[in-house]
This record gives sequence, C-alpha cells and structure tokens, in this order.
Amino acid sequence: MTAQQKVIDAVRARFGPKAALTDADVIAPWLNDWRGRYHGAAAAILQPDSTEAVAAMVTLAGQHGVALVPQGGNTSMVGGATPPEDGSALILSLRRLNRVRRIDAAANLAEVEAGVILADLHDAALAQGRRFPLTLSAKGSATVGGLVSTNAGGTQVLRFGTMRGLVLGLEAVLADGSIHGGLAALKKDNRGYDLNQLLIGAEGTLGVVTAASLKLVAAVHARAVAWIGLASPHAGLELLQRLEAATDTIESFEIIPARSLGAVLRHIPGTRAPLSGDHGWHVLIEAVAVSAEQEAPAQLIERLLGPALESGLAEDATIAANEAQAEAFWKLRESISEAERASGPALQHDISVPVAAMPDFMIDGAKAVETRFPGVSAGAFGHLGDGNVHFHVRAPAGSAADWAKTHSDVISPFVHDLVVAAGGSISAEHGIGQMKRDELARLSSSARMHALAAIKRAFDPRNLLNPGKLVFLAPERADQ
Amino acid sequence: MTAQQKVIDAVRARFGPKAALTDADVIAPWLNDWRGRYHGAAAAILQPDSTEAVAAMVTLAGQHGVALVPQGGNTSMVGGATPPEDGSALILSLRRLNRVRRIDAAANLAEVEAGVILADLHDAALAQGRRFPLTLSAKGSATVGGLVSTNAGGTQVLRFGTMRGLVLGLEAVLADGSIHGGLAALKKDNRGYDLNQLLIGAEGTLGVVTAASLKLVAAVHARAVAWIGLASPHAGLELLQRLEAATDTIESFEIIPARSLGAVLRHIPGTRAPLSGDHGWHVLIEAVAVSAEQEAPAQLIERLLGPALESGLAEDATIAANEAQAEAFWKLRESISEAERASGPALQHDISVPVAAMPDFMIDGAKAVETRFPGVSAGAFGHLGDGNVHFHVRAPAGSAADWAKTHSDVISPFVHDLVVAAGGSISAEHGIGQMKRDELARLSSSARMHALAAIKRAFDPRNLLNPGKLVFLAPERADQ
Repeated sequence: MTAQQKVIDAVRARFGPKAALTDADVIAPWLNDWRGRYHGAAAAILQPDSTEAVAAMVTLAGQHGVALVPQGGNTSMVGGATPPEDGSALILSLRRLNRVRRIDAAANLAEVEAGVILADLHDAALAQGRRFPLTLSAKGSATVGGLVSTNAGGTQVLRFGTMRGLVLGLEAVLADGSIHGGLAALKKDNRGYDLNQLLIGAEGTLGVVTAASLKLVAAVHARAVAWIGLASPHAGLELLQRLEAATDTIESFEIIPARSLGAVLRHIPGTRAPLSGDHGWHVLIEAVAVSAEQEAPAQLIERLLGPALESGLAEDATIAANEAQAEAFWKLRESISEAERASGPALQHDISVPVAAMPDFMIDGAKAVETRFPGVSAGAFGHLGDGNVHFHVRAPAGSAADWAKTHSDVISPFVHDLVVAAGGSISAEHGIGQMKRDELARLSSSARMHALAAIKRAFDPRNLLNPGKLVFLAPERADQ
Repeated sequence: MTAQQKVIDAVRARFGPKAALTDADVIAPWLNDWRGRYHGAAAAILQPDSTEAVAAMVTLAGQHGVALVPQGGNTSMVGGATPPEDGSALILSLRRLNRVRRIDAAANLAEVEAGVILADLHDAALAQGRRFPLTLSAKGSATVGGLVSTNAGGTQVLRFGTMRGLVLGLEAVLADGSIHGGLAALKKDNRGYDLNQLLIGAEGTLGVVTAASLKLVAAVHARAVAWIGLASPHAGLELLQRLEAATDTIESFEIIPARSLGAVLRHIPGTRAPLSGDHGWHVLIEAVAVSAEQEAPAQLIERLLGPALESGLAEDATIAANEAQAEAFWKLRESISEAERASGPALQHDISVPVAAMPDFMIDGAKAVETRFPGVSAGAFGHLGDGNVHFHVRAPAGSAADWAKTHSDVISPFVHDLVVAAGGSISAEHGIGQMKRDELARLSSSARMHALAAIKRAFDPRNLLNPGKLVFLAPERADQ
C-alpha cells in the first residue's frame, strides 16, 4: 500500500468516508490550474471541516511523509494550487471550512473560515451594513484562505491596500500539525516576529490558513465612475496625484491605452466608447461615499476634474449617469484580457514598479520589447494607482496558436529584466506558485533567496506543504 | 587577544580609529537601558557610517564569532538594546548612518537611514509640506532603525497605524553580512515571504535595519484637542465608535481615570483640570485637518460631541481654545507616568486587548489585581482607540522604595495571565527585549514559540545578532 493510501485510509477511519474524495471524475477538475497550463495528479482530496481536522490530517500526512497541497477556489494564476505531476501529494481542500464565525459591525470585524468564498463574505458583511473592501474577478470562486495565502489585491487596493492590510488576525495549522492561534484582532501587538504577516502571501508553503479576522469598512452609500481621455500615462500620474492630494475617496484609478480599448470595442459585443473623440490613453476612476453627509461622489469628481480639463491635463471626461453606465465603463476595463486574447496570442506579465516610475516604464518598456523582438507589439494597462500593470506582449500577425508557449522562455525573462532594472517586482499580485519560481530565483539577491529558503526550511523542514511552489527547500548549510 | 579585540582591530584597520569607540567614559551611557534597569558590558561601540560598512562589520564579527547588539537611540523600555553583562558582545551603533536620502513629496515618501532621529525626520518632512505621522515621547532620541525594529506605536496609531503600516521598504544587513535590498516602495509585491514585515519588530535579532522607505502624509493644517468627562470606559468606547463612524480625522483617543488625573494635578506644577466638575473618567481626543477646504477640526468635534452631550453619553466637554491650551491638555495626559511615580512605587504593564474588550478589562482587571494583592491599587490609562493601555499596579502606602523590584515576579505574571485570558498581548508597543522574554515563552503556545525560535535559527544560526533578546535560539530538532 502506498503512503498516500495509508493517509487516505487513516483520514477515513477517523473522519468518515466523505473526508477523502478519491473518485477520479470528482477529483479531475481540481488537478488543473485556472488557466489550464498546469496538470497535476493526486490520489485524493482531503476535506476537513474544522481546524482540528486540518491539524489531524496534517499530522497524519506528516507521519507517512506525504505532502499536501492546500487548495481553496483553485483560481491561482501561477499554478499555485496544482499538485505535483508525480502524484506524490494529496490535495487538502479547505472548502468545507466555510463558516462565517461572526461579523462584529461595531468593531468592523469579520471572523471567517478559510473556505468562505469572497462573494459570500461580501454578502455577509453587507447584511450588517458593512463592506469587505477587496474584490477581484474570481470573487465567485476565490476563498479567504487563498486570498490570504496569496496576499490578493484587486481593484480597490488604491484605497484599502492588499490582504496584508486587511488581515487583523490569523489561525493556521503549521507543518507539524500544531495550531497557530493568532485570530485576536489586536491593533498593537509586539510579541516578536509577526507570524501572521509571514503566513500572508506564503502560498500555503509554511502553514495552512484555517481562519482569518478581517477588517470591514462602512458599506457604500453612493459611487461615481468617470472615464477620462488624456495624452499620456504621465498625465495620468499627475491627475492621480492631484486627486489623492484632494480626497481619500478615490478607490480605483485604472489606465487603459487606446489600443486596448480598441480591442475591446472590436471584440466584445455591446461595448461602446465613453468619449466621442480619440485619445491616446484612458483612465477609469471610481469614488465612493459612505453616507449622505459626505459630498456626493459625482459632484466630487466633477469638482476635481474641472481644473484638470481647463488646464488641458485631461483632454475630455464623462461621469457615468447611472449604475448601468458605471457597470458599462467597468466592463470595458474588465474585458481587456478577453478582447486581447481574441486578437491573437500574447504573453501576460503581472508586474509592479514604484508608482512614480510607472509612466516611463509603460512607454519605454514597451519600446524596448518591440525593438528586441521585431514584429511583436507590447503594451500595459491596469492599476496605475498601485504601480501595478498587466504588461502584454502580443504575437506578430499570423503567429501560430501556441506562440505564447514557444516564446515565453525568451520574452518573459526580457520583460522581467526590465522590471528589475526599474526597481520593480515580477509578481505584483499573482504570486510565484510554480510559474515564476525559477524567475524569482534568477532575479533575486542571494540574501533574499537564502532567507526565503531558510524560512521554508524552518517551518517545513521535510517539504510537505505545497512542495515545489514559491521556493525550493533550503539545503543544509556547511556551518550548521 | 580576545575575539572582541580582534574585531575592534580589524574594524579600525579598515575604517579608521573613529569606527570603534573604546573609551570607557564614552561607552558608559550606552551600556545601560533607558529606565536604568539593565546594565551590560561591551569592549567597544562600532560606528559604521554606510550600509556597506555595516555589512563589513557584521561579516568581521561573524568571522570571529563575536555577537553584535544593534543600537539606535537606546530608548528601549524592555532592555532591548543593552548588551549582555558578560561583555561577550560589541555594540553596533547606527547613529552615524543618519542621512535623509530623499523626500519625495509627490510620492509621499521619505527614504532615510537607520540613525535618523525621529524629530529630525519630522522636520525634514515638514520642510516639504509633509508629515511623518508617528510620534512618541522619545522622539528627540529614538531613531528610525529602532522604531522599525520595535514596530513602534505612539499617539497617532488610531489613524495611521504602527510602523508596520508606515514602512514601504527596508534595507538591512543579515547575519551573514549580506545586504537585503528591499527599499523599493512597491504598493504590490508578491514575491514570496515578506522579509520587510519579518524584520519589522524583530528587535535586531534577525538583521540590522540600515535604511527605510517611509510613508508620508499631508502636513497638518489645523488641529483641535478636546477634553471630555464621562462615567465609564464603556461610555468612552461608545463615543469612540460614534466618532469613527462619522469621521476618519480623529488621530488620538486617550482615556484617563479620575485617579490618574488627580495624581497629575497634585504632583505636576502648573497643571489644572480642564473641566470644573468631577468625572470618573476622562477622554482626550485630537482631530486634524490637512487643508482649509476640510471642515475645521474644532467645528467637527463640536458637531460630533453635541449629540453625545445631549444624550448623556458624555457628561461634559471642552475644546482647547488655542494651541497653548491644546498643549496643556496633552501635558496632562503625558505627565501621568511621572505623576504616578511621584505618588509611590508602581509596576507598569504595556498591554493590549481587542478594543471592544478593553472597557471590561480596565474595570475587571483592576478589581482582580486588587483582590488578589490586598493593599495595592490598580488602574489603566492610555490609547483606548488602539486597545492599548498602560496598566499600573501601585504599591500599598508605606511600601519600600524597591517594592516594584521585589514584587514584579508575582504581580506581573498575574496581570499577564489576565491579559492572555482576555485574548490580549503582554507587549502592545514596547516589544519583548530581555524584560519580557521569559513571560513570552511562558504564555505563548508551543506552535508560536517553536516558530519564533525556528525563524531566529534560520536567520542567525550562530546567535550573533542581539543574543538573549526576544527569543532563545531554537535547539536543533531530532528529525533534522
């Protein structure tokens, strides 16, 4: 009997037959990643329904030397939740750990289990007049545990930050099966190294997040969405800085080049341009008010955009007249990836640089790629306010359908080199997973790589938690 | 020749005689902690003036197996920067690394070296129309490196958070002498475990912070300080929650029991009560505006306090009529420790619990201590808005001057047990250092202590960085 089967049997003996799924048809969808790039194998999906059951299963797996791959909604963009191909690991699904333990509206706090789906958390908070201020397109599948473990971002980071700023406490099972109880939402706590912050963004390689205390904010009373045409990303940055100096109610500031908007208008049915003229660049902004006492967001945006239009910083602008139009503006932004896919093969890069350096990077980086790889076209769009864009390199016309696969080994490292030269990050919000692990190692200082590997080894010396993701286990050092 | 002397000679050979201070008179003040509780010994203070010099000195010390105690302003409240008594370590002073490398007002960013004194950072930011929104009473001595390494808090945490939320990037020298270059202020960066967050609050036990990128905010345009009398800390919490629901401009919310105010009025010359009547509890709040377009803070406070006074939630209130009165209100708050010292011996505890649990803790915790130790009186005051108070246990009348020293071993663990039972932290803002190290070990889960020690061992396997502080080095585990 394999070690994997021994773990399965032991889990079933203790927690019942449902605690380990082994039916190949049931397992199959969870063996592949969201984008269909990675394909793993696993004899079972373990399904604990309590923190104690997670601890017991981690302990059992450890006793048999079997690795576990923690999985929430399986929406990783970097193969972060896909098991290894050799079938050596079992999947540990957190999806049955899906209780909203409590919403404390007065304290602006939600305590929820790892398997709670983001959209359900939004609903639970709204029912108490509160909002969990992080959202992303996978909200119908992505779970709290995955959002924590990948330090998820999304479209409201400008105002509220990533998960790192929204997690007030964490509960997690460590590799030896012990439970880290760090859920208490303390505003000040200086008891040594911050284990919660270490687990955030660790991609399940240091421990299995089982629950989180999360920050809530007041529910949205009114929002306004505006579409602005301007000449350059530099004008976009200046507009952003003016808005930020005047108000802290801007939640989104997204930049879109004319080419990306054109692709959307061509390929996505029912879309139309918000402005009548031609503009080299477009910006979508959203402002929010939480009470009737605050200045209405539409009025605020109008007041702040007026001087920008008069001075020529903005070429034209329009504010969505109603919710339907606001949604239509957002659809333009959110359809870019789909529209560009319809235009032909492309390589996507989720990168960040310091906000002030982003306009130059968007222009110069695209030129450098196009010069180095004649025939391709490069362009970036996205969260200018966060210094985070999606940098796409599109195949020359007439390229084969598998162009991205055959060219990623040459083009992506070139893009990453540009990012590093600009002081940026090769993974702004998607994490490392298996897709960027080797690039991370190539582009990081030895100080950084040694520290990452040493931390992994300190928490998981036998490499049993999500092995092969993020970082390889540290080798023993000669001096130890 | 001792290993320490070899390091001193090597440092001088490479960086000149000033790079290592050995004159006993010069060294003496830096061998004792701020409160005069801990007394160490060291043959020299090493004084690097660049990051590269720090790296070189850490490397040299490592080659000779000599431990280093990083030191900034030496204002630790827990003996965190005092060298060991046996003279085995050298002090590594960061005070010559004191350059403000740049202030980028548009990006709201300051890049400063570890030895920059907090008050100087305030001045440098203000000269560019910006503010570094963290302050504390030791601002004339405390340095950026120490503030980062202790995750400092202070009186503006309510609005701006602790250092953890203000550090945008870090540069540090790790135990092997390698340089971690993490200064780039990226709003989104998911390249694995967050080394910066791990170094924040690590008290110099994992690496030596050499520089930081820090968040700035708009300079203060106007502020208002109000003094409110009320019946209980519960009324204080309700007032806090009402204010927070209505505005985000409240920067401080400090609670003071009648007894503490009484001690100040008795012992601190020139003080007077802001309100004419008697109140069981007092609250000091400060609101700030950053532009003339914002509602004036005094008007805002008046508007928000009106309903609280009408409903009886607040018994009385007054707003400082001018800056001198605002300073006088703050002096009452900041003189409490001095006034209580003048009243007799006491044990201080820097503790936190969840904000919602604080009113009960303030009342019930004090009662529990007074019941268990007849004759003492207990009381708490401080940052109610952060769930962080200073919990004082005062000696019975007529106690000896060394009462605190002779009673801390019994009383402080009792207080800490109460804090843990309330889901709180035995160190809210002062850190662990050597003073709370054993209590941390006693009161933490084995999961937590194993993780802390494993991290220490991963970064500093030979225990050469600030040894004996925060956590003991992890023993090797049998399974490795």
